[in-house]
Amino acid sequence: MAARDPLYLEDLAPGRRFATAEHTVDEAEMLAFAGRYDPQPFHLDAEAGRDSLFGGLVASGWFTAGVTMRLQVESGPPVAGGMIGAGGRIEWPRPTRAGDTLRVETEVLEARPSRSRPDRGLVRILATTLNQRDEPVQTFEVTLVVPRRPA
Amino acid sequence: MAARDPLYLEDLAPGRRFATAEHTVDEAEMLAFAGRYDPQPFHLDAEAGRDSLFGGLVASGWFTAGVTMRLQVESGPPVAGGMIGAGGRIEWPRPTRAGDTLRVETEVLEARPSRSRPDRGLVRILATTLNQRDEPVQTFEVTLVVPRRPA
Repeated sequence: MAARDPLYLEDLAPGRRFATAEHTVDEAEMLAFAGRYDPQPFHLDAEAGRDSLFGGLVASGWFTAGVTMRLQVESGPPVAGGMIGAGGRIEWPRPTRAGDTLRVETEVLEARPSRSRPDRGLVRILATTLNQRDEPVQTFEVTLVVPRRPA
Repeated sequence: MAARDPLYLEDLAPGRRFATAEHTVDEAEMLAFAGRYDPQPFHLDAEAGRDSLFGGLVASGWFTAGVTMRLQVESGPPVAGGMIGAGGRIEWPRPTRAGDTLRVETEVLEARPSRSRPDRGLVRILATTLNQRDEPVQTFEVTLVVPRRPA
C-alpha cells in the first residue's frame, strides 16, 4: 500500500467524502469478541439468538464499532496525528451478522479552528458502516481533533 | 454468584442507580485489542504515545467501551432479555491507561412504554465509567429496549 498524504484541518472541507476497503466478518472472530467484551447469549449462540429480539446470532454493536475503527485506520481518511475522537452519537440501525461484508463511508459535516488551541481544529464527521446490501449497520457522528497544517 | 432477578420496564424508575464490580486493565489485553481493532501508534507503543496528543500510551476508546459492556453484563443491571441498546451518545472525557481500575455507575433517566409494541418499553440510562481516581473515562447515554413484566 502506498503511503497516503496526511490530512490537516485545511484539507477537510464540509462535503468531502471518503470510503474504506471492505471487511468480511468471520464468525469465530465475532464470537471471540463477544466472549470477551459482550457475553450475552444472543451474541454467543445461534439457538439463544433465535429466542431473542434479534431472531438469530448477531454481533455485539461494539464489535461493529471495532471493525469500523480498524477499517478507518487502515483505509479511511489518513488524518494527521491519527483519528482521535472526543465523543459522538452512535446508532446501530440493524445488527451485523457473521459473513456480512462491511465498509465505511465518511462525510465531513463541519470543520472549524479551535478557539483555545491555534495549532488544531475540530472536524465533525458522519461515518456510516454499510453491509453488502448497502444497509447501514452503524452510524457514528463524531468530532475529531485535527492539527492545522504547519506553516 | 447468586442469580439476580431480571429487571422489567416496571422496575426501572427514573433515578434508580446501579453499580458494577471493578476491573483492572491489563496492558497486554489493552494492546491486543488495539492491534486488532484500533491499530494507531499511541494505542500500541509507549514511545509513540509520548509524541502524541495523549502524552503516553492510552487505550482505544472502543476498548474502554468493551470493558464497560463486559462489566455491565457481568455485574450491572440484569435487564430481562439482555442489555440491548439501539444507540446513544458516547464521550471519552479522558483516556484509559494500563493498570487503571474501572467500574460503571448507571442511572435511569427515563422509562416509557413503547407506542407500537405493548410488550416492551424504552429506558434511557446514563452509564458512567470511572477510574480508580473517580474520574470519568467514558459516559454513554443510551436507550435500551426492555420488556414489560409479563402479566
